[in-house]
Amino acid sequence: MFEELRDLGEQARRVARTLRTLDTNVKNGTLLAIAETILEEEFDILSANSEDIEAGRAAGLDEHMLERLLLTESRLESIAGGVRSVAALPDPVGESFDARTLPNGLRISKRRVPIGVIGVIYESRPNVTVDIAALCLKSGNAAILRGGKEAVHSNRALASAVAAGCEKAGVPGNAVQLVQAQDRALVKDMLTAHEYIDMIIPRGGPGLHRFALENATIPVITGGIGICHVYVDESADPQKVVPIVYNAKVQRPTVCNALDVLLIHSAVAGDLLPQIADDLARAEVTLRCDPRALAILQGHPLVSAAGSEDFDTEFLSLVLAVRVVDSLEEALDHISQHSTQHSDAIITEDYSNAMRFVDAVDSAAVYVNASTRFTDGGEFGLGAEVAISTQRLHARGPMALRELTTYKWVILGDGQVRA
Amino acid sequence: MFEELRDLGEQARRVARTLRTLDTNVKNGTLLAIAETILEEEFDILSANSEDIEAGRAAGLDEHMLERLLLTESRLESIAGGVRSVAALPDPVGESFDARTLPNGLRISKRRVPIGVIGVIYESRPNVTVDIAALCLKSGNAAILRGGKEAVHSNRALASAVAAGCEKAGVPGNAVQLVQAQDRALVKDMLTAHEYIDMIIPRGGPGLHRFALENATIPVITGGIGICHVYVDESADPQKVVPIVYNAKVQRPTVCNALDVLLIHSAVAGDLLPQIADDLARAEVTLRCDPRALAILQGHPLVSAAGSEDFDTEFLSLVLAVRVVDSLEEALDHISQHSTQHSDAIITEDYSNAMRFVDAVDSAAVYVNASTRFTDGGEFGLGAEVAISTQRLHARGPMALRELTTYKWVILGDGQVRA
Repeated sequence: MFEELRDLGEQARRVARTLRTLDTNVKNGTLLAIAETILEEEFDILSANSEDIEAGRAAGLDEHMLERLLLTESRLESIAGGVRSVAALPDPVGESFDARTLPNGLRISKRRVPIGVIGVIYESRPNVTVDIAALCLKSGNAAILRGGKEAVHSNRALASAVAAGCEKAGVPGNAVQLVQAQDRALVKDMLTAHEYIDMIIPRGGPGLHRFALENATIPVITGGIGICHVYVDESADPQKVVPIVYNAKVQRPTVCNALDVLLIHSAVAGDLLPQIADDLARAEVTLRCDPRALAILQGHPLVSAAGSEDFDTEFLSLVLAVRVVDSLEEALDHISQHSTQHSDAIITEDYSNAMRFVDAVDSAAVYVNASTRFTDGGEFGLGAEVAISTQRLHARGPMALRELTTYKWVILGDGQVRA
Repeated sequence: MFEELRDLGEQARRVARTLRTLDTNVKNGTLLAIAETILEEEFDILSANSEDIEAGRAAGLDEHMLERLLLTESRLESIAGGVRSVAALPDPVGESFDARTLPNGLRISKRRVPIGVIGVIYESRPNVTVDIAALCLKSGNAAILRGGKEAVHSNRALASAVAAGCEKAGVPGNAVQLVQAQDRALVKDMLTAHEYIDMIIPRGGPGLHRFALENATIPVITGGIGICHVYVDESADPQKVVPIVYNAKVQRPTVCNALDVLLIHSAVAGDLLPQIADDLARAEVTLRCDPRALAILQGHPLVSAAGSEDFDTEFLSLVLAVRVVDSLEEALDHISQHSTQHSDAIITEDYSNAMRFVDAVDSAAVYVNASTRFTDGGEFGLGAEVAISTQRLHARGPMALRELTTYKWVILGDGQVRA
């Protein structure tokens, strides 16, 4: 194991013990101090960011990547605002639940506690450094962050502001630590460092998630990949169909909860598909159609025949695969075979079909008559978002502060022994 | 990957889709049919078990191992009774929680669903085959079981009774599948077979848990290892101390929630340690003492000096390590350094010390004035026990049916789109 990781790990384990029992007031004060420090150190942070931007341009990063990397005064204000809003959220630590008194008089309950040390591996966007730091601190966890090499100077400047903010508030500056070595082998070490890390969150593209899934022997929250379906049922209300499909596909096509595949019942496809296609044409959405959908939409601009891979692709762009089905069950079979279990929706006015869909579709978020775009911590009312989990244990779907905790059993007795 | 594992995996994925939506009545009927079939096939099962016992004796297994391996008429009755009692437990699947209506009118809730396919790797005791099968079926999960080679004939006979019981009740016989190949390399394959297995439960000794922890890239529920502490505070009620220590150490010393280390405050050690030692002497408990405890107990039979490794040992026998401390904080430091985060207890009449202990000790089960022996699914009122988890995610402490489930978000709308 890398020497640096061992050092960071030992420090993280030590500081985690302090963070675990911090008062909510201290944690909130720390977050406010961090927000303040980020704004105070604006000059240093933006200078560091310029170095990354220059190096990125020299290395031939495309404009899209440079745009993600870029920090500005207003972006720093928004990052600091994000930290303040985490301070305003309720503290999940200490919540008691499933409490009861057993027949022998033992008072038993579960109490929510921090997980311990969270490892985060992320790619270019430097704001993740601060977002994750704030969420980990608020939930009483230590963090070991490993950002992308494109953002190395920005991340160091931001992490240094986080550390300075912690120290101002009397919290150890190593509560959140940034890995300095840029060696890729260190990532693999992180994924197996049980002694030091309790949970790994990868934040980035499918390649990173796949790598983490295949190499982590620490619990890992994979997600972020969504091949999302909307099924338009025979009984769907046309007034709902067109806006939901448009919203799910167009409102923000580059994210994981955007629509990828439209399934539509043959009884309504002839009537509704042209309306949907006309509406999507406003945003220049390309449709990749199965033969029956193609027959209905022939002559329509932006329509072409789907290849089979189109039903297994997260497009992240203004492309939509379309397939006509003859029944709800056929749609369910399709979803079961092709979904990445992120977000899938039915549009229907038929009560039994709605219930059948909700029962049968085994995705993190299952919708009736609503856009898949709602799968988001903020939209779900969680106040924040660490990740969207598409794995099955611990947490599914949007994860926020509560999902950065675990629980312990607390048993209060007055001398009970086991018979 | 082993061909057999791939076959079992594909079948498990297919059958999991059926199991996921089975009515509770069908699941309960299946369990009753399994219990019945086990008793009907008693002759075959006991014959198969005789083969294992003979082979074990020939291979030089010790009496303790043979005893664990042995099935008898009455043991089969108790196994069948266990299956019936799982049928009587409430079904966790379908439970709704965290339900609310968002400001935009979306009705959002979490719904409990099966995890999918559970892989279980276990050692000699053949009853695990049936116990786990019953718990997985009741919670709507498919199971892939890999038992120890010592019990291969018994496990096959029991798995065949489980399959026959399923089929009698109209449930696919491959809902619970037993791995046939005895190759150890297959275990490693199981631990990384993401496509087919959602969660791995190892059931066995520390070696197996360690192996699973280090090799599994699938979420794995490690546990079963407990270095458990009782701290006797300055303010402890002597009437509670002696019975709790005796119960925690003696009532069943071979299990993970039995007491290993006694920490006692120096202000009461002189008075209480001799009483504790006298009481434990009834059960011939050996005490391994630090120098201060040794000074107090010198001349006492069954008392010797502790080596440092004695404070990091799960004894699983009638041995107890003893250390005198000068404060609650010293006890907390000791526990923090040596505990395996299983079960730890304080005996105290001081309210603030009780609260401090509960806050500071980060174990799966934290006790005030009660024996650590209560850490058990049955004792905690869960009605069953799959495992006791000492890892931190998904579930900690005793795991039962609910811990074999996850959740999905269900969102019911009437046309909502994201702004």
